[in-house]
Amino acid sequence: MSRLRLRNDRLHELLRDGDQRRLRRMLTRLDEVQLASQLDNLTSEDQLHILGLLPVDRRAPVLSHMRYEAAATIIARLAPEQAAALLDDLRPDDVVDILGRVDDQKLGEILARLPQADAEALEELLAYDDDTAGGIMSPRFFATGADSTVAETLTQLQAVELPTHVMYVYVIDPEGKLVGVCSLRQFVQRRPHEHVRDFMQAEVVSVRVDADQEDVADLVSRYDLVAMPVVDAHNVLIGVVEVDDVVDVLREEATEDILQMAGAGHQLSDARSFWPSLRVRWRWLGAAAVGGTVAAYSLSSFDASLAEVPALAFFMPVVAGMGGNVGMQSSTIVVRGLAVGFLEAERVRKLVVREVALGASLGLIYGLLIGLFALWLGAEGADPWRLGTVVSCGCAGSMTLAAIVGTCTPLALDRAGVDPAIATGPFVTTSVDVMGLLFYFWLANILLGAGAG
Amino acid sequence: MSRLRLRNDRLHELLRDGDQRRLRRMLTRLDEVQLASQLDNLTSEDQLHILGLLPVDRRAPVLSHMRYEAAATIIARLAPEQAAALLDDLRPDDVVDILGRVDDQKLGEILARLPQADAEALEELLAYDDDTAGGIMSPRFFATGADSTVAETLTQLQAVELPTHVMYVYVIDPEGKLVGVCSLRQFVQRRPHEHVRDFMQAEVVSVRVDADQEDVADLVSRYDLVAMPVVDAHNVLIGVVEVDDVVDVLREEATEDILQMAGAGHQLSDARSFWPSLRVRWRWLGAAAVGGTVAAYSLSSFDASLAEVPALAFFMPVVAGMGGNVGMQSSTIVVRGLAVGFLEAERVRKLVVREVALGASLGLIYGLLIGLFALWLGAEGADPWRLGTVVSCGCAGSMTLAAIVGTCTPLALDRAGVDPAIATGPFVTTSVDVMGLLFYFWLANILLGAGAG
Repeated sequence: MSRLRLRNDRLHELLRDGDQRRLRRMLTRLDEVQLASQLDNLTSEDQLHILGLLPVDRRAPVLSHMRYEAAATIIARLAPEQAAALLDDLRPDDVVDILGRVDDQKLGEILARLPQADAEALEELLAYDDDTAGGIMSPRFFATGADSTVAETLTQLQAVELPTHVMYVYVIDPEGKLVGVCSLRQFVQRRPHEHVRDFMQAEVVSVRVDADQEDVADLVSRYDLVAMPVVDAHNVLIGVVEVDDVVDVLREEATEDILQMAGAGHQLSDARSFWPSLRVRWRWLGAAAVGGTVAAYSLSSFDASLAEVPALAFFMPVVAGMGGNVGMQSSTIVVRGLAVGFLEAERVRKLVVREVALGASLGLIYGLLIGLFALWLGAEGADPWRLGTVVSCGCAGSMTLAAIVGTCTPLALDRAGVDPAIATGPFVTTSVDVMGLLFYFWLANILLGAGAG
Repeated sequence: MSRLRLRNDRLHELLRDGDQRRLRRMLTRLDEVQLASQLDNLTSEDQLHILGLLPVDRRAPVLSHMRYEAAATIIARLAPEQAAALLDDLRPDDVVDILGRVDDQKLGEILARLPQADAEALEELLAYDDDTAGGIMSPRFFATGADSTVAETLTQLQAVELPTHVMYVYVIDPEGKLVGVCSLRQFVQRRPHEHVRDFMQAEVVSVRVDADQEDVADLVSRYDLVAMPVVDAHNVLIGVVEVDDVVDVLREEATEDILQMAGAGHQLSDARSFWPSLRVRWRWLGAAAVGGTVAAYSLSSFDASLAEVPALAFFMPVVAGMGGNVGMQSSTIVVRGLAVGFLEAERVRKLVVREVALGASLGLIYGLLIGLFALWLGAEGADPWRLGTVVSCGCAGSMTLAAIVGTCTPLALDRAGVDPAIATGPFVTTSVDVMGLLFYFWLANILLGAGAG
């Protein structure tokens, strides 16, 4: 993994030094994307200051490349007239993503200052759920009739202002229903008198407006599309999801999965401030705390064993830790495999068998090694061989148990319709800890003959 | 998170039941992507069987939508003539991705049976590193000269077979150097006599052929492009990375980050078989085992404390576990933040302060709660109040330490040029365990006055 650094810390430095002349020069040198990426990480005062220094026609493109949250903060701080003027130059799907993050009062003020038709179109888009096809689609597309000729369509194409990324020409019937698709390339390559009907592709992959954005991203990526038509319940074409938004969705969802597995929230932006972070992490740690106290309570029944062989305690972290790691490995494979469609039904049994075999094999290897270490460390104790055996089998058992729990928990959650990325983490880490240690002390009780006293 | 199920388990069932008639009917009903997605999860025998049942013209499209590993397995099992015939219908960048996974002997046999020009072009592409721009680019693009007119370019466009996704017309000078870019849309909308020079965009975002594929994906996603031109060291245009490959890269890299943080490998396909999985996980668990034995060794010096207050042992899992969870949360935020460019230089100090404050606050809250539980559980012991205080402060300290280690480790690794996704996980989990527990026992030694005996 490596990252390209678009950022240039100089903008930040120039702002701090107050060197206006060099600041302006720097602004002319950076393109919109570079500027947006730097603005994203400045305070809102600095963001407004820089935006004010830019020529009016550069402001909208810069805003459109900023993170939506950051753009929304700027929009919320501008006077409604200014905000409306700025937003009027953006693509509607970007405007919706920004305005969806502005509070209702401000939103009303801004919409009131936009041309009425635009405001109504935006309100319609804003009504869709954020993470559905409707929430990420753009209502701008180009459609023609099946009976049009290439020449007629080209004339229509020349008359309209096309979105930058237009790539497909959709074919609709008189009621607006989607009946076919052509690529722009075909209009360049076909003869003028040919009819759209004769070369259009009649089987169009489309999504319903209420489809989950992740499903849209999945389809776009499987079918190698650069835009996905969005239809309503009657198959009427109402918008298009463009691939750049799909790319954003994919990054967002991957981040969400990673963060959720660690109980660190949904979005990185949640991590920006103290209180939201505290709220998010609080719950996850609550699960761990309950697990930990259950472990403490369960272990307390083994106090006789511990009093007799204190060395047992030294190996608790390694028994629990090795199990925890194996559990994480198995559950990560399953959670990610489910998310990207890697695991299909017929593979499940094979997967469970392999993961458990892996856990058990790794458990045997490391159990043996750690057991030998226990033998050495406990050499001066009462019964080093039995200690070694307990530690060895404890590790192996804890790792095998962990592989079972780590593999089956996300599979079961998925079957039950619960998102495995959210619930797997806390359940697996906590239950693996408790189960592994109970097994270890149960073994100790038997093999060391303690606990009887 | 939700997933669209393209799969239909029926194909698998029909194969098992040997119902050839219904199987063939099913094959005509599924499109290429659906077929590919089902084939991906069958055994190679079944894959070859199904592919054989398909009409010849459907085989290549199905193969191109399969996972590269699965497609490579099929290609490797076909006779070289058949493999060459099949591959000849695929996009060169897909062919390269498939052939890159076939062994050298087979590769040579297949290349020898392809048209010489194609074979040479493929060999050139195969020479590029898998995860660079060269490794994912397609050598098919359309370029024109700056002095051409719209009409001339359209004539050229009509004469060539364009790749499906062509979207941009690149502008090159007589030496082949990239000097501009236009969108296909402009050729539809501009007047015939206009010169390319007059409307082309002269500032082209391009990447060098040896650029990391992740950087390419990052640029495509920041600039909202649908294709990225690839140039050599002299700025000569040699290929194009298309957005569908970028989408694949993004999914792949997200998966890699998720798996690596858990020490579960690089790719989900690694998880397909026992031995590769064992090798991958073995190393990570080795780190955990070393950490665990260090912990055991360090803790062994506290045997007097443990013998005196065995209840201390009951709370080891919760002290280590709470720390481990906080460490994971902080390190996940930082690792993912670094990967998607969320953290920029000027934010680092703020981030560290906030994460440590979060760890300490959560530590105080949960430390208090768990301490109260210890007070209750140890009520019959010698000194419940002091036990409660040790557990309470132990948890709080372990969680604060974990936040520091979890935040600073990936930052330091990134500065040192090491991929934080690989090294953070084992280091953080292991060191947090050891440090947290040592702090806990050190506290116990002081407050319980034990260890002196």
